[in-house]
Amino acid sequence: MPLPAEFALIARHFRPLAEDVPGALALADDAALLDPPAGRTLVLAADAMVAGVHFLPDDPPDTIGRKLLRVNLSDLAAMGADPLGYLMTTALPPGITPEWLDAFARGLKEDQRGYGCGLLGGDTVSTPGPLTLSLTVVGTVAPGRALTRTGARAGDAVWVSGTIGDGALGLLALTDRLPGLAGRHRAALADRYRLPRPRLPLGRRLSGIATACLDVSDGLVQDLGHLCRAAGLSAELEAEAVPLSEAAGAAVAANAALFARCLTGGDDYELVFTAPPAQSGALAAIAADTGIPLARIGRMTPAGPTEVRVLRAGVELPLAETGWSHIR
Amino acid sequence: MPLPAEFALIARHFRPLAEDVPGALALADDAALLDPPAGRTLVLAADAMVAGVHFLPDDPPDTIGRKLLRVNLSDLAAMGADPLGYLMTTALPPGITPEWLDAFARGLKEDQRGYGCGLLGGDTVSTPGPLTLSLTVVGTVAPGRALTRTGARAGDAVWVSGTIGDGALGLLALTDRLPGLAGRHRAALADRYRLPRPRLPLGRRLSGIATACLDVSDGLVQDLGHLCRAAGLSAELEAEAVPLSEAAGAAVAANAALFARCLTGGDDYELVFTAPPAQSGALAAIAADTGIPLARIGRMTPAGPTEVRVLRAGVELPLAETGWSHIR
Repeated sequence: MPLPAEFALIARHFRPLAEDVPGALALADDAALLDPPAGRTLVLAADAMVAGVHFLPDDPPDTIGRKLLRVNLSDLAAMGADPLGYLMTTALPPGITPEWLDAFARGLKEDQRGYGCGLLGGDTVSTPGPLTLSLTVVGTVAPGRALTRTGARAGDAVWVSGTIGDGALGLLALTDRLPGLAGRHRAALADRYRLPRPRLPLGRRLSGIATACLDVSDGLVQDLGHLCRAAGLSAELEAEAVPLSEAAGAAVAANAALFARCLTGGDDYELVFTAPPAQSGALAAIAADTGIPLARIGRMTPAGPTEVRVLRAGVELPLAETGWSHIR
Repeated sequence: MPLPAEFALIARHFRPLAEDVPGALALADDAALLDPPAGRTLVLAADAMVAGVHFLPDDPPDTIGRKLLRVNLSDLAAMGADPLGYLMTTALPPGITPEWLDAFARGLKEDQRGYGCGLLGGDTVSTPGPLTLSLTVVGTVAPGRALTRTGARAGDAVWVSGTIGDGALGLLALTDRLPGLAGRHRAALADRYRLPRPRLPLGRRLSGIATACLDVSDGLVQDLGHLCRAAGLSAELEAEAVPLSEAAGAAVAANAALFARCLTGGDDYELVFTAPPAQSGALAAIAADTGIPLARIGRMTPAGPTEVRVLRAGVELPLAETGWSHIR
């Protein structure tokens, strides 16, 4: 079945995502109208994803829409913000069917419910190239309470949420580069690659506790490097303290070289943040309250020759590449 | 010279666009922070553009960035809103050089000054496909004062700003499909295709005068059809009243069939709006104040079998296609 024309397509697939979003005007106008909650600062982020670069063209379509939304929500989490809504543009290649779009939108609808945000507007165009998606998320935070990348101090502890490396290993699993790994581990890693968990409940608890924060999208070492540069500091990580999932642990046990991939691969969408050592108790309480595990993985140091050093039993681990750049 | 890696690229080409935009945090954080002006409603729109679909791959790069921003500003104009800032994502193919990006960003910088808005954030990724751009514009309007597509009444006059058809004919001129047209006319039409004129000064004057408004992006007849559907009405246009530029007039004089293209082609980015006949005097004053020509081109009628009829000396003009759909 060929695609319906632009307007029918929007009505069928995307208008349901704007239901109950008053300012979206049913996606039938030139722009959305939004009365921002009084006394809140707006938080705005945008991310793009290209088939074959940021997701696999044969990923289930419902996970593609959800991943797009979630990587943006992860940016809000890193600022300690709450989601409000989003705008999305889609550039669709000829092979996209209405059934594909149904599933894509179904995934988004599910996540809208889960995260409390709706579609405000956007644009749908055709492309002769790969499926290309862009999403701008709108959130809010109390004035002066946003977490930023600036502010880490020497002596601060470095913390990370959840587990590290699952997304990068998930991509390897999905492209048959993890032979011998048990099926349940492959499935767990693939799921993490396809469906990031934006750490919104954690982010909104970190204001006043974390001195700097960001989300790990391009690899732990590279992203922690951003915190270092913003503060004019270096960081030391303890390899043994970096939290691995059971599945990632099994992959690394089978091939020790994959540990470096965990540290430098992308697609974690965990929060990495710094906090004074005295906040350890408060952070343990937050982990207990939110159910999001937190691990203390290192500390900030005065600037040294290497931005981020990873030590195993006190010996520096060589890392071939420090992270994933979206431009190669 | 190969492209620098993602972060160097952002620093060189895009960070200068975020200078003096406080909440942009120098594009160095996960999201932008924006304190919305008190007592204003936010207006948000997003548009995507693909090389070879929405612009020509060999268009001057400075015009490509400006067109992207301007088509979004045109959406704000259609709502009567004022621009505040924008977020942009770029998916860059391998052939894009730093020099190309310099020119692209230079065009944006110029328009930022002209329209009073700055870059708040975004994302830069690579693509194996065509250059694909997405922009979300943020504006504001006084509460309850936004123009929308809903609200036209039978008997209202239909008005349009500027001239119609230049963008569509400009695309024909640039692709050598207007043989024999004088060089200065070709240049004028090409310029209109590449650089829309968002009618912001007009939009912000129309609140309380226009009953419905939108910008003409997909062709006058199709876009006026949206106003008709939103109101449950039809519209009648007088062909002789549709304003053509000198260049478009010359093209139509040489090939009368091009008149239909003017009415149904896209890329005008003029405002089409409805207003009670009694507002004619007020509209003449607005045209004089803003320097933006306004033409009364028809009227809204009770719903008939055809949504938009175009009459020439009282005889209905057949139109082969009613507009440009971005999905074919």
